[in-house]
Amino acid sequence: MKKSVFLGAALMAFAAGAAQDAKWIWYPGDYALWRGNELQARRIEHGGGYPTFWASYNFHPSVQFRKRLSLAKPEVVELAVEGTLRFTGRDDLPGVTSNKYVFPAGDYQVVASVFCGAKPPALYLNGPTVKTDGSWEADWRMGGSACQPHVPAPAAECEDRFAAASARPADYRLPTRPEKAVSVSREGNRLFADFGRETFGFVKLLGANKPGRVRVVYGESEPEARELDPEKVDSWEFADVPAAGDFRMPVSRGFRYVHVLPETEGLSFRDVAMDFEWLPLERTGSFRCDNERLNKIWDVAAWTLGLTLREIPVEGAKRDRWTWSGDACQSYLMNYYLYGDRQLVKDAIWYLRGGDPVVMHVNQIMDYTFYWFTSIRDYWLFTGDAAFVKQAWTRMTSLMDFAISRLDRCGRPHADRGDWMFIDWAPEPLHNYGGVTSFEQMLFVRALEAMAELGKVAGAPEKLLGMYRVRAQKLKLEVVPLFWSAEKGALMHLLKDDGTLDPQLTRYPNMFGLAWGYFDDAQRASVLKNVIFNDKVMKIQTPYMRFYELESLCTLGRQTDVMKAMLEYWGGMLDEGATSFWELYNTDEKGLDKYAMYGRPYGKSLCHAWGASPIYLLGRYYLGVEPVKPGFAEYEVKPCLGGLKWMEGDVPTPSGPVHVRVDEKGVRVTGNGGVGKLVWKGRTVAVPPHSTAALGDE
Amino acid sequence: MKKSVFLGAALMAFAAGAAQDAKWIWYPGDYALWRGNELQARRIEHGGGYPTFWASYNFHPSVQFRKRLSLAKPEVVELAVEGTLRFTGRDDLPGVTSNKYVFPAGDYQVVASVFCGAKPPALYLNGPTVKTDGSWEADWRMGGSACQPHVPAPAAECEDRFAAASARPADYRLPTRPEKAVSVSREGNRLFADFGRETFGFVKLLGANKPGRVRVVYGESEPEARELDPEKVDSWEFADVPAAGDFRMPVSRGFRYVHVLPETEGLSFRDVAMDFEWLPLERTGSFRCDNERLNKIWDVAAWTLGLTLREIPVEGAKRDRWTWSGDACQSYLMNYYLYGDRQLVKDAIWYLRGGDPVVMHVNQIMDYTFYWFTSIRDYWLFTGDAAFVKQAWTRMTSLMDFAISRLDRCGRPHADRGDWMFIDWAPEPLHNYGGVTSFEQMLFVRALEAMAELGKVAGAPEKLLGMYRVRAQKLKLEVVPLFWSAEKGALMHLLKDDGTLDPQLTRYPNMFGLAWGYFDDAQRASVLKNVIFNDKVMKIQTPYMRFYELESLCTLGRQTDVMKAMLEYWGGMLDEGATSFWELYNTDEKGLDKYAMYGRPYGKSLCHAWGASPIYLLGRYYLGVEPVKPGFAEYEVKPCLGGLKWMEGDVPTPSGPVHVRVDEKGVRVTGNGGVGKLVWKGRTVAVPPHSTAALGDE
Repeated sequence: MKKSVFLGAALMAFAAGAAQDAKWIWYPGDYALWRGNELQARRIEHGGGYPTFWASYNFHPSVQFRKRLSLAKPEVVELAVEGTLRFTGRDDLPGVTSNKYVFPAGDYQVVASVFCGAKPPALYLNGPTVKTDGSWEADWRMGGSACQPHVPAPAAECEDRFAAASARPADYRLPTRPEKAVSVSREGNRLFADFGRETFGFVKLLGANKPGRVRVVYGESEPEARELDPEKVDSWEFADVPAAGDFRMPVSRGFRYVHVLPETEGLSFRDVAMDFEWLPLERTGSFRCDNERLNKIWDVAAWTLGLTLREIPVEGAKRDRWTWSGDACQSYLMNYYLYGDRQLVKDAIWYLRGGDPVVMHVNQIMDYTFYWFTSIRDYWLFTGDAAFVKQAWTRMTSLMDFAISRLDRCGRPHADRGDWMFIDWAPEPLHNYGGVTSFEQMLFVRALEAMAELGKVAGAPEKLLGMYRVRAQKLKLEVVPLFWSAEKGALMHLLKDDGTLDPQLTRYPNMFGLAWGYFDDAQRASVLKNVIFNDKVMKIQTPYMRFYELESLCTLGRQTDVMKAMLEYWGGMLDEGATSFWELYNTDEKGLDKYAMYGRPYGKSLCHAWGASPIYLLGRYYLGVEPVKPGFAEYEVKPCLGGLKWMEGDVPTPSGPVHVRVDEKGVRVTGNGGVGKLVWKGRTVAVPPHSTAALGDE
Repeated sequence: MKKSVFLGAALMAFAAGAAQDAKWIWYPGDYALWRGNELQARRIEHGGGYPTFWASYNFHPSVQFRKRLSLAKPEVVELAVEGTLRFTGRDDLPGVTSNKYVFPAGDYQVVASVFCGAKPPALYLNGPTVKTDGSWEADWRMGGSACQPHVPAPAAECEDRFAAASARPADYRLPTRPEKAVSVSREGNRLFADFGRETFGFVKLLGANKPGRVRVVYGESEPEARELDPEKVDSWEFADVPAAGDFRMPVSRGFRYVHVLPETEGLSFRDVAMDFEWLPLERTGSFRCDNERLNKIWDVAAWTLGLTLREIPVEGAKRDRWTWSGDACQSYLMNYYLYGDRQLVKDAIWYLRGGDPVVMHVNQIMDYTFYWFTSIRDYWLFTGDAAFVKQAWTRMTSLMDFAISRLDRCGRPHADRGDWMFIDWAPEPLHNYGGVTSFEQMLFVRALEAMAELGKVAGAPEKLLGMYRVRAQKLKLEVVPLFWSAEKGALMHLLKDDGTLDPQLTRYPNMFGLAWGYFDDAQRASVLKNVIFNDKVMKIQTPYMRFYELESLCTLGRQTDVMKAMLEYWGGMLDEGATSFWELYNTDEKGLDKYAMYGRPYGKSLCHAWGASPIYLLGRYYLGVEPVKPGFAEYEVKPCLGGLKWMEGDVPTPSGPVHVRVDEKGVRVTGNGGVGKLVWKGRTVAVPPHSTAALGDE
């Protein structure tokens, strides 16, 4: 039952009712906060560490776990704890003096108080009937008071991968396996290794002839790794090799090339290798078609996503190894079409949210706060995991309180000087603090709508949810009247504080407007003509915003246009030699220019999670599988070849993958636990649970 | 200059301007929170751990330290850090790759971002001019935003004891020295040791004949340590001795007697000893007089206080090893008359307050919240340390916001079901949730007054302070009209929710009313007759409330009565064999009864911080030394022999001790840095800085 680490965690998490084992439990979010903090701190730049610049929150050092016990006779349980533990709930509960504990017979609520200072308090109890799992309550405040009760303590958090007393959550490490470089060349005592494609792991320096200091330069491109000027290249570090022999770098890094530069006179190495490190998820999503270039795009996208999913998702394998909400939100959606894993999404959501009090936007970015809310709505739709929504609800409301406190007097999101309004990396500035943007307004509407919807799941008071709905409706109705330019036939970017529209025209609000139904038919046609298919409007250079641009076209049934764009854009990166997809791709940049960003010659990340969106687009808008009710209880399959001759693939759902095979003559779908509906050329057929349905040209 | 650990810290802390050395800095309060949490977790009961039952807060894992640098030339600094460090503030600051760092020349603000997951982030920089100390700013939220700025980042916190790169704050341990038992007896393979008096440290089991498990029982009384039933005695633990030879218990404990009970067949030891562990403060306070019984009381009180001052103050040496606000508030006052140390007070104040959001009263006790505020006012008066008041101000306001949120609709403190209203341990219940008590109302007035006064020091808006003052005045004016019983001639304890006075009459509100000027002359006389000197009113059994009872009499000039009470009450404990003062002393209890409390035969703490109040009473109301302006800038010496023939002693002040010698003929005072005023038999004379003044019978 217990596979090592969490191989197959995705499947196990999706297998309803399978979790009868005892598990480690902790206060919801605490483990993700702690692990997420540790992970962010592994970033390096110019040889040194690089802590995040947003507020970080810590785990609760003292936690109470509660459960009502009903024991006909005394029960002996196996016990393991991170920290100091005491049971209360009745007077005769003895102190904890070993890894066995005897609960007396009777009907009583037991409270396990756990303190731990250096890592999150966690508890594991495994007896015949007494087992720690998500049915225990977790609290850090002893239940509140009578006149100011707090929201009922959420269920304790647990994961299937920690289903043994010995598997302490804080000791968890990603698995590794040894790998060799494709080529290693030597120049004097320097070694230069190429691992053949973008990868991730611990570099190993083999056969040192003596102790000494070495500088290790990591490169995603060859010129980057060959660059000797430490000012020009970001990702390098010193290592002090303590003795002759083999040495493994202490921290895993993302790279394709490694340059080993001994600093100590006479120090040399025999070889360079690595321990590849990965998040062991099972790919239950797949895609194949007649276009080999597209297949290659899908493969490289999947590899890109895999490299950026670490202990929690980060945005780039090499740089910056941080977890960003806007980026992560896309990683989650790709994950739903590749692995269908829940834990990685939950952990990133916890980490990004942090704790209370809220003192800044998520990642300090206003839009990233709004994406945080919509990512939970996506999570709910794709997983149906109501327990998480309930656990996270108090942190959702306190973040929304913060967001509302930052609105201007018209109730519109208006970035403040200390806030960062990101939107996208673009050649012209998108961030103007002297007004409100249509883009942020539309995002905030989505965030409010998510709160109104999720609040029902969490059991929040209708009055509160009504307030969210009213705000959302008011803002949503305003957008077109406020931002529409009759002259440009499109939504404008910025409404200035003086009440006039700034002349800047961007794709962002217009593509969101298309996807989210802001326009009537005439407006839609105008936007497509004047913005989307207008080459004079600034092109989007990041896969990040191309994700939404292409998605908006797909929602309009423009899959053939999107196919062309995908082959050109992601195919273009392949032509440039990409083995993983990039942070930004400007087809005009050639030579070394394509590696530059942020004013640094090798500043660009060449393995960026948001580069992997074809996984999502192909799964959702070509294979056409999407949930209709939370957790795929009901789902729709509406395939669209978009110019392909045939395609075939799988989309993960909580009850197992949905398989789709389409060619020009017809489509066949094999469903799993949920109730499917297959839509093809205007016809519809049901896909009952665990069965196959087909539609074709008669 | 650097003595080991913090020997002499009291003097150094009091020596203005002496701090030119670089010091470790951290976010204010973080180190005390972390250390305080760890300390609380060392409590044991019935062999097992015992985490606190109040909400615990964690340190900030990511902190920014800021300082404006102005360097004529590049500067090399010695660097040490707890965690991951990066400097920002200009583009050309390199990564941190060793324990030396070069700051470029120029005028710029440097930001040191430090992340640490397992202990508080801390930084040490020591260059010719760039040195970390309290002049750096500390922040965890990147400075807030323009429309919602937060209170300016407080100065980073530092302590003189950490004035070297090697002295990492988290590695700090109290010093120890080996001590032998006074007697060790043997019964079979059991050993029973008596260390002669209450003590504190690591028990050492010497000369084990083989590995094995042993049970160690700690006793403050001989019968407690001899008790073999593990249910009847609280303080014992198992130890697994790994090998033949000597073994030191891993955690230091409070005890006088130790019973060593091998569990493993055939296991035996040669001897029992200990490593005494103490907080190395210098006693700059002293007291001697013609009454040897009183001298003994002072000595035992000083020993008691010393044993309960650990890494931060706790309330009892053996039990419960926790830090309680009401108790700590008294420890601070005693400390001002024995050591004059600032750090122990600040650390306890930080720990007790915790972080934000506030979810319960301090220690979950309403009165303990109110004492927390008044303890900072005391601290300000005795030390003049404005920097701390500024650092703590935001946590003062958020706790006061919480306290105000719990008021009833008349604005009176009304305990809620989840709150604990403690007041005192007493034979009849004092805690009634069906009304408001005069006692809590008066305490809350003091808390509000403290806020109004300290807010000025912190530079808070006058409007806010005015609100505190108005609330305080309203409540204060209400007390006598609301709670006075004409029939009883005293303040009653409880005003019930139905608007009637409960018939319960207690000493508590009446003694506070005397000390804090609530009564006119007729009321005062009535209270003295009907309550204070009325043996029918329930006697106070704890030294805790005797502290305030006797203090109130001292403020009325009743030192002769108080002397009699001290000799009888604390002398009574000495007659019972006390080597440290107790949690509770009921002169009626004899034999084993005197060790019982909480329904447990040895539940009473026999070394309790609040037992040590004679130190405070003798220093403040007999030697008569007290600060008039913060930090003893001005002070008064108003000696009162209270029936003694002569007395002599020292009272610490920030600029050194004030020495007082009094007999029936006159008084001589040697002052230190501040401006003193000697008052004796209606006459007054100035004590200029660093000089001696005298008054006597001509």
